[in-house]
Amino acid sequence: MPDKKSLLDKMLSMEDNFLPNISIDCVIFGYHERELKILCSRTHKTSGWILPGGFVRKDIPIDDAAKQVLTMRTGLDGLFLKQFMTFGNSDRIWRNSPFYPELEATFGPDFKKLKWISERMVSIGYYALTDFIKVIPAPGLLDYECKWFNIKNLPVFMLDHKQIFKEAFKSLKLHIHTEPIGLNLLPQKFTLGDLQALYETILEKKLDQRNFTKKLMTIGVIQKLQEKKFIGGHRSPYLFQFDKKTYFNAVKNGIELAF
Amino acid sequence: MPDKKSLLDKMLSMEDNFLPNISIDCVIFGYHERELKILCSRTHKTSGWILPGGFVRKDIPIDDAAKQVLTMRTGLDGLFLKQFMTFGNSDRIWRNSPFYPELEATFGPDFKKLKWISERMVSIGYYALTDFIKVIPAPGLLDYECKWFNIKNLPVFMLDHKQIFKEAFKSLKLHIHTEPIGLNLLPQKFTLGDLQALYETILEKKLDQRNFTKKLMTIGVIQKLQEKKFIGGHRSPYLFQFDKKTYFNAVKNGIELAF
Repeated sequence: MPDKKSLLDKMLSMEDNFLPNISIDCVIFGYHERELKILCSRTHKTSGWILPGGFVRKDIPIDDAAKQVLTMRTGLDGLFLKQFMTFGNSDRIWRNSPFYPELEATFGPDFKKLKWISERMVSIGYYALTDFIKVIPAPGLLDYECKWFNIKNLPVFMLDHKQIFKEAFKSLKLHIHTEPIGLNLLPQKFTLGDLQALYETILEKKLDQRNFTKKLMTIGVIQKLQEKKFIGGHRSPYLFQFDKKTYFNAVKNGIELAF
Repeated sequence: MPDKKSLLDKMLSMEDNFLPNISIDCVIFGYHERELKILCSRTHKTSGWILPGGFVRKDIPIDDAAKQVLTMRTGLDGLFLKQFMTFGNSDRIWRNSPFYPELEATFGPDFKKLKWISERMVSIGYYALTDFIKVIPAPGLLDYECKWFNIKNLPVFMLDHKQIFKEAFKSLKLHIHTEPIGLNLLPQKFTLGDLQALYETILEKKLDQRNFTKKLMTIGVIQKLQEKKFIGGHRSPYLFQFDKKTYFNAVKNGIELAF
């Protein structure tokens, strides 16, 4: 981490190149074998946690600003990224948050000179999907640390970042029927059990195995391969892959993938 | 319409009370008997059309700013209103749009002094639902006229307002399965035919009548009344109403309402 004084000076000099009063916050979902996590950072070892975020340069579309946050934090390009909601309560002001004294203790009293800290911020929320074992989290400029948390065991967040996570998760549950979420969170080849586990983890409920399989096979979004996965004992289920054309057609029509 | 010079002066003096670079655009859907319309305005009789919109006062949450736009334009309170997407391409600048000369011809060369006109705007999109026969459209401060257009026969829009409509319509199609859209667009008592017509109009496709009715009855979101509607000839179908408790449960679980 560069020294804090020069970092603050750099940020103060940069502010004018960015849209004022607008930020980006990213809920980066990581999935692996029935575990769903999100990436969180904090600026100090005693402070509350935040979602990875950033600001919008005046010459850059908001979607590109979100992509930059995502690539910087995960080291990965081309992840599935979707805008889901903008958060604009009038009390979204870091300077007035109960966590501000911790921020000031970390960055010094000049921290509040940043408009980003002293003025109301409207934050555009994006969520992204990845396999968390592929990612070595990269802390942001201001971060003390950055790590994955299981969504069932989240830390205390600053400002409304818990609410931002909740809305992102709600969108993910809805979009599993209309967006290529399976395609983005599973390895290229997977068993029916892997696929069902993904749906069950996101929807937070058990699904009837026969209905699940039958529906997927009827829609034709997955193809059975002539390959099996050895998972111990006498069990070696067939591997499947997505039929991308049918899959994208189905997600386009949305409602087809509902279980 | 007040005289244009004093209107412009008023706007210039107001700008500082609002968040810079942020606007609100509302896609106000009106439905009545198989017709789906949206409310559009224009500032001059030869200019392109726009969606009703406004700006965000620094002390007001974005949702309240959207509510104000909606109430002002429709004269109605308490309509269903939902944020669906934020539009943030870097070329969203009125001053640079091919329609700007028309705006300047209408409001004079000082119009570009408004930051709202000369700077990049990030616009937060909301959609609203109403019955269009209940609404007498009220033009905004800058409007020459304001009226309903059938979505199948829309006029030429300025900036990216056509795109904003398209995304709102996509959200409406998706949300018909997860939000109380039927409840907001139908009269309190309706026939099964009325309900199916609403779904068919929004989804832009024919639905199988038997499946539609069966599914709705199974979920229990509608209740049959001991009343009939006389619609001519020998036809007098039963009237129904929503079972609000079951309905809101079903929309909460989302996927239940998919056809």
